[in-house]
Amino acid sequence: MTTTPRALVLFANGFEEIETVAVIDVLRRAGVQVTTASPSGGIVEGSRGIRIESERRLVELSCRDFDAIVLPGGSANARTLAVDPEAQRLIREARNLDRLVGAICAAPIALKSADAIRGARLTSHPSVESELAGERYVAERVVKDGRLLTSRGPGTAIEFALALVSELCGPEKAKSVAGPMLVG
Amino acid sequence: MTTTPRALVLFANGFEEIETVAVIDVLRRAGVQVTTASPSGGIVEGSRGIRIESERRLVELSCRDFDAIVLPGGSANARTLAVDPEAQRLIREARNLDRLVGAICAAPIALKSADAIRGARLTSHPSVESELAGERYVAERVVKDGRLLTSRGPGTAIEFALALVSELCGPEKAKSVAGPMLVG
Repeated sequence: MTTTPRALVLFANGFEEIETVAVIDVLRRAGVQVTTASPSGGIVEGSRGIRIESERRLVELSCRDFDAIVLPGGSANARTLAVDPEAQRLIREARNLDRLVGAICAAPIALKSADAIRGARLTSHPSVESELAGERYVAERVVKDGRLLTSRGPGTAIEFALALVSELCGPEKAKSVAGPMLVG
Repeated sequence: MTTTPRALVLFANGFEEIETVAVIDVLRRAGVQVTTASPSGGIVEGSRGIRIESERRLVELSCRDFDAIVLPGGSANARTLAVDPEAQRLIREARNLDRLVGAICAAPIALKSADAIRGARLTSHPSVESELAGERYVAERVVKDGRLLTSRGPGTAIEFALALVSELCGPEKAKSVAGPMLVG
């Protein structure tokens, strides 16, 4: 663990905008050094047409350089990350190196296709619950199982991001970030 | 009012990313036709370094073409919108035409500088409360006063966006949008 934790947020076209931005914004508020990346780099278009710049290409990156990787949801994004070879490599690397892994909404299916969540206690968006049969599925807003954090949708994205902060920077930092954000 | 409500979301560099994206995302989920605009158009950089494309330049637009205008927060963004002549023109137009006007976080100060909230019941981020002295300030998460909706910060952004949907499309639509988002 470095003094300044480093997180990689990876997403493809069809990413859910609130989930993606909430993770990046909240982690940066906590002082985490966040790198954003997508399969092709550059502009990526979200599920509601918002176009966001990603800073890096997945192929350039290694999980050795990060303390955490986070996958936001959005159905099309999750289905791409579930088959993209570089996304799958990074997920397997993160699990092999015991890095913190976060996935929200539909994104746990991309972890499953990398065989990275066998038997894990987890949650997801209800729309993909049936695809996670065999795992210890729970319908809670944020679920922690060792180094795996999962969550459900845009409405749980800030809680999910604060849980990531809590893991990377401690619960006191999460609390100090939540205050000025007026989290309910 | 058209069959499909139209909303203009305006922001400048330093916009708060969660607030901006939550408004656009939630309104589009409700079927509202959303136009995004900034002083110069193109890429705009948020308060936490996320770069988002805006579709139009403020100077090209008139509130006659919209049912609502919405100002997300972020301190630098709000201070720019408070002095940008085109942003100020659009705010005055919206009030003169009795359009729905939404402002969250620091953005009510841009309404104030356009003299658009005299005596209104409203809220804002606590950090700019003192600049709104003279208004009927309340520390509630979302505040409605006629055609004016105000709110407090990233943690209240989804509630604020759903309140905009409720005004533009009715409360049933807001409820149907909130469900799949897993709003708490």
